Amino acid sequence: MTTHRFAPTHFHSAIGSHEPVLRIADGDTVVTTTLDAGGWDANGERLATTGNPMTGSFFVEGTEPGDALAVSIDRLTPNREHGFAWSVVAPNVVDPDFVRDLPQRDIVRWTIDRAAGTVALAEPPERLRGLMVPLAPMIGCFGVAPPGGQAISTATSGEHGGNMDYRGFGPGVTAYFPVFVPGALFHPGDGHAVQGDGEIVGTGVETSFEMEFTVRVRKDCRIGWPRGETADEIFTVGNARPLDQAVQHATTEMVRWLGEDFGMDLVAASHVLGQVVRYDLGNVFAPAYTMVCRLAKRWLG
Amino acid sequence: MTTHRFAPTHFHSAIGSHEPVLRIADGDTVVTTTLDAGGWDANGERLATTGNPMTGSFFVEGTEPGDALAVSIDRLTPNREHGFAWSVVAPNVVDPDFVRDLPQRDIVRWTIDRAAGTVALAEPPERLRGLMVPLAPMIGCFGVAPPGGQAISTATSGEHGGNMDYRGFGPGVTAYFPVFVPGALFHPGDGHAVQGDGEIVGTGVETSFEMEFTVRVRKDCRIGWPRGETADEIFTVGNARPLDQAVQHATTEMVRWLGEDFGMDLVAASHVLGQVVRYDLGNVFAPAYTMVCRLAKRWLG
Amino acid sequence: MTTHRFAPTHFHSAIGSHEPVLRIADGDTVVTTTLDAGGWDANGERLATTGNPMTGSFFVEGTEPGDALAVSIDRLTPNREHGFAWSVVAPNVVDPDFVRDLPQRDIVRWTIDRAAGTVALAEPPERLRGLMVPLAPMIGCFGVAPPGGQAISTATSGEHGGNMDYRGFGPGVTAYFPVFVPGALFHPGDGHAVQGDGEIVGTGVETSFEMEFTVRVRKDCRIGWPRGETADEIFTVGNARPLDQAVQHATTEMVRWLGEDFGMDLVAASHVLGQVVRYDLGNVFAPAYTMVCRLAKRWLG
Amino acid sequence: MTTHRFAPTHFHSAIGSHEPVLRIADGDTVVTTTLDAGGWDANGERLATTGNPMTGSFFVEGTEPGDALAVSIDRLTPNREHGFAWSVVAPNVVDPDFVRDLPQRDIVRWTIDRAAGTVALAEPPERLRGLMVPLAPMIGCFGVAPPGGQAISTATSGEHGGNMDYRGFGPGVTAYFPVFVPGALFHPGDGHAVQGDGEIVGTGVETSFEMEFTVRVRKDCRIGWPRGETADEIFTVGNARPLDQAVQHATTEMVRWLGEDFGMDLVAASHVLGQVVRYDLGNVFAPAYTMVCRLAKRWLG
Repeated sequence: MTTHRFAPTHFHSAIGSHEPVLRIADGDTVVTTTLDAGGWDANGERLATTGNPMTGSFFVEGTEPGDALAVSIDRLTPNREHGFAWSVVAPNVVDPDFVRDLPQRDIVRWTIDRAAGTVALAEPPERLRGLMVPLAPMIGCFGVAPPGGQAISTATSGEHGGNMDYRGFGPGVTAYFPVFVPGALFHPGDGHAVQGDGEIVGTGVETSFEMEFTVRVRKDCRIGWPRGETADEIFTVGNARPLDQAVQHATTEMVRWLGEDFGMDLVAASHVLGQVVRYDLGNVFAPAYTMVCRLAKRWLG
Repeated sequence: MTTHRFAPTHFHSAIGSHEPVLRIADGDTVVTTTLDAGGWDANGERLATTGNPMTGSFFVEGTEPGDALAVSIDRLTPNREHGFAWSVVAPNVVDPDFVRDLPQRDIVRWTIDRAAGTVALAEPPERLRGLMVPLAPMIGCFGVAPPGGQAISTATSGEHGGNMDYRGFGPGVTAYFPVFVPGALFHPGDGHAVQGDGEIVGTGVETSFEMEFTVRVRKDCRIGWPRGETADEIFTVGNARPLDQAVQHATTEMVRWLGEDFGMDLVAASHVLGQVVRYDLGNVFAPAYTMVCRLAKRWLG
Repeated sequence: MTTHRFAPTHFHSAIGSHEPVLRIADGDTVVTTTLDAGGWDANGERLATTGNPMTGSFFVEGTEPGDALAVSIDRLTPNREHGFAWSVVAPNVVDPDFVRDLPQRDIVRWTIDRAAGTVALAEPPERLRGLMVPLAPMIGCFGVAPPGGQAISTATSGEHGGNMDYRGFGPGVTAYFPVFVPGALFHPGDGHAVQGDGEIVGTGVETSFEMEFTVRVRKDCRIGWPRGETADEIFTVGNARPLDQAVQHATTEMVRWLGEDFGMDLVAASHVLGQVVRYDLGNVFAPAYTMVCRLAKRWLG
Repeated sequence: MTTHRFAPTHFHSAIGSHEPVLRIADGDTVVTTTLDAGGWDANGERLATTGNPMTGSFFVEGTEPGDALAVSIDRLTPNREHGFAWSVVAPNVVDPDFVRDLPQRDIVRWTIDRAAGTVALAEPPERLRGLMVPLAPMIGCFGVAPPGGQAISTATSGEHGGNMDYRGFGPGVTAYFPVFVPGALFHPGDGHAVQGDGEIVGTGVETSFEMEFTVRVRKDCRIGWPRGETADEIFTVGNARPLDQAVQHATTEMVRWLGEDFGMDLVAASHVLGQVVRYDLGNVFAPAYTMVCRLAKRWLG
C-alpha cells in the first residue's frame, strides 16, 4: 500500500473519461487537495471558474467495468480559515407563491475555526450573534467516469455519483461506486465545512480541503447506485427528480444489496426496512435531487 | 383542567365536521382508545371496516378558525399484544422496472411485548429469527376538520393533518393544527407500535391503542401546516405529492414560523437552516406524501 | 325521458353526499344553471362566496356503486355577456427562478359575444387590440359523490371527477364517472367561455352558464377514472400530482378500457397507443393536475 | 448556399464536443443519413451498438456561444422498408400497482410503405389485422454540444436538445437550439417512421433515414431551451422530470420569446396563452421527459 501525495494543477467541470493525473493501486491512499465550489484554493487564488471543479481523474489499476470502487474518506481537513455560503433559501424549496417574498441572494463569508471545530458567520446579523455551528466536513461532489462517452456536469449527479451534496459523505465513511470504464477514473471536489440536509440555500459552507482517501477494488460487484458504509450503518443513494424517484432508486438498491450480500429475500428485507429504515435528504437543490436509504448494521443479523 | 375518559363506539373514515362525541376545554386531557388501521379493537373485534377509522370528533371549547390547536401526546399504550404489517415494499417505492420482481403482499402478525418494550414477527422467516425491534408508538393519522364542508379521507393528508404516518408523532410531542371550524373537531386514530421512515411497506405495526392527550388553544395563531415540538426540536410538516412539494410546504412553514415567533427574517432563517436543518421522510406511501422539516431548539437563540 | 328544468338556490364548495335537489331517471335531461367560479350568477349577483360553487346534487334513480354514470353535455350557453380571468401565469407553471419576475395578478374582464361566438378582453392593452378568441364553452368542475363519507373540495379533482379544468369537457362530449354512492349524486359548475390547455393563468374566462345535460346509467361498469367520448374519440382522465402520475392514471385507465370493451390485450393496446395515442394537458394549476389520454375511434377497429 | 452530401461512418452515443465531420456555412443544406435507435443502417447492417447513435458532429461556421442555431428539417425519408418498436407500454407510464400485469416486452417489426405513406405491423395479432398508420417521420434525438465539457447521453435530453422524442420534429419544422460552443456542433439521429405522444412503449417505429436539413445562424440570440416553428405555430420545449418541471421550462421559454420577439409583456402574454395555449407531451419515457408549449401564429398579432 502506497500513500501518494498529489497536488492538482487543472480541474474539470464534468465527470468523464479525463486523462488520469495519477495511477494508483488497490489499497493505495491519496493525499490531495480540492478547490471550493467556486474554484478558489487554500490561498484564495481562483484556479477554475466553473462550478464544482474536480481534482483528478485518478486511475485505479485493475479496475474494470462491472467492478465496484470503494473510496474510504480518511480525512477531510479545510485548508483555509473561511468559506462562503448563499444567504437565502432557494426558490425551488419554498412554495411557488412564496418565492416573491424571498430577497435576492448574496454570498456571505463564514469563518472556520479548525482548532475549535466550529464554523460561524464572519459578519452575523444582530439576531445571529454567537451562532456557532460544529465543523462537519463533507465532500459535495465525487464520483467515477460514466459509461458511453458521457461527461456529466458537476452540477448534477447520477449512477456514477457526482454532485450529491449529502452531509453523510464525511470522514469515516466508505463510498462505493459502480465502475463503468477501465481504471474507474475517480474525481473528488466541492467540499463543505458544514451543510444542512437538502443544501437548501444552494451551498454548504464552501471551502477548499486537504483530502485523504483510500481506494479498494471490489471485483465483479455490480452495483446500480452509489452505496456507503460507516461503522454503524450501510446506506444507498438515489439521484433523480422528483425526490420520489430518488427514493425509488435508493430503496431498490438497498433491497438488492440486502438480497445479494446479506441473504435477505424481498420479504425479509421488507420486514426489516418497513419498521426500521431511515432516509436522509441529501440535496434538494441541484438538477438531480438525492435521497439516502440507511439501515443500521445491527439489523443485518 | 379535567381528565375525560371516552370510550368510542363509532368511527369515521374521513376527517370532517362530524358530530362531536365530547366537548372539552382548553387544557383538558382525554384518555381514549383508537382502533387499528383495519378497524380492530383491543379485543380483536372489528368495529369498523374501512381504512384508518378515527375516534372522535372532539370539540375544543373556545376554538375558532384562525386559532391553532395544540395536542400533546401524553401517552400511547398498545392495548393488545399483537399488530399486523404488510410483507412487501410498496410498488411506488421501488423502480418501475423492479415492480415485477416484487412478490404479492401478505398481512403478517407481529407480537408486541409491552413489558420488554419490543416488537417482533410472530412467525419470523429463518433469516430473521431473533429480530426484535424497540417499541416506538406513534399516531399515524390525526387531525382537525378541514374548511369548506370538506371531509377528507383518512387515507390521505393535508393542511388539516390526516394520514401523515410520521414516526415522530409519538409520546412527548406536541402537534399543532390550523383550526378551520369552530371547536377544531379533533380526530385521532391509526396507531403504530413501530414504523420505519416512509412507511414503505404501506403499514407500520398496526395495532389498537389507549391514547392520552391534552389540548391547548392558541388564539389567533394562523399556521399553514401541522407543526410539532419536542423537548429538543421544533418541526413543520408538508403533505403533498411529489415529495418535492412536501419539502416546499414544510420549508415555507418553517421559515414563516422562524419569522413570526423567533424574530428571524428570511436571511437569518436561511443562514441557520442552510447549515443545520434536518428533514425526515414521514410517509412515501399514501396519496399525499409527508416530509418533515426539523430544527433543534439550540439554534433558536 | 323527461326534461327537467331546475333553478338552483344553494351551492356546494365540495363534492360529496349532499341532499339531492332533484331526482332524475336514466335517460332524463336537465336544463339548469351554474354560477361562475366566484359565485356570481347571470345577473351579476353573488350567490356563493367560495370557489367553484356547484349546482346539485342530482340523484340518478337506479344508480348504484359499481355502475358508471354517463353525462352528455348537450348544451352549454353562457347566460351573461362577460366573464373574468386572472392576468398572469401562475407561479407554479414557470421556473422557480422566474417567479420573482411575475407581476401581481389582477382580475380582468372579458366580453362574451354569443351571437358572434367570440370572447375578447373588455379593456385590452394596446398590444392586444383586436384580439378575439372563439367562444369554446366547457365545464371546469363536475363530478359525483366520492366514497367513504368524503366531501372533496371543488378546488381539486380525483377519481370522482371534480375540478379537472379540461377544455375537452364541452358540448358534444359524454363524460363517464365511476359511481360510489346510490344515485351517483352529480354536481356541475365552474363553466368557462374559453380556456387554454393547462389553465395556466389559474382561470379560463369564468362565467355563468345555462347547461343542458342528459344522464344514462351503465350498470355494472366499474371504471377507475373519469372517461369521455366524442363523435371521433374516446379519452380517459387522470388527476394527480405530479403530472407523471396523472399520465399513469390516464394510461392505465385507457389500456383497461381497450381490454374490457374493445378486445385489445395489453400488447395490442400497446401497439396502437404507442404509435397513435394523444395526450392533452387538462390543468396544471389546481391541487391535482389533469392529463387526458385520447384515442381516435378509427383505431378501435 | 451549398448542398453537402455526407455519408457517416462513425457515430456517437452522447452529444458533446466531438470532432466535426463536416464544416458547413450559414444557409447550407446537408443531405445525410441516420442509423436507427439500435444502430442499424439502411441495409440492415449494425454500425453502432449503443442506443440512439448520432451522425455528426456538424460544425456551423460563424456560430458562437450566445447565438442560436436554426435547423430546418427539409426532408426525412426512411431509407429502408422496415422499422421496429417495443410491444408493451413502459412500466413508468402505468400505475405502480398495474406494472405486474404487464407482459415482458418484445421487439416487433413494422413494415414501412413509402409509396403508400403507411406503417403497419409486419405480423399483426388477429385483433389488429388491417391496422395501417400514416407515415409521419420525425427525428427523435438531435441537438448541439452542451457547455462545460459535457457529453450528454443520447438517452436523455436537456437545454441542448437531445432525446426529446417529440413527434412534432418532422419535415416542415425549423428547430432552434442555444449555441454553447463554437460551431454549435450539431448531431442528428434516432428517426421514427411514426410515434404517438409520449413514446409510451419506449420507441416509435425506429428506422434509418435519409435526412436533409438546412442550417441558419441567429447571431446574439440567447435562448434557454429548444424552440421550433412551423408554418402555423411557434413552440418551445422543456426537458426534465417530473413533467411539471418540463411544463415550467417550456412555459417560461415561451413567455420570454413572446416578450423578446413579439412585444408582449408578461400580462399580455398571459392573456393570450391563458386562453389559447396548447401543450404536447413529447416523451414520458426517457430520463428527462419532454413537454412542448405551442402557440398558433394567428395569435401573435
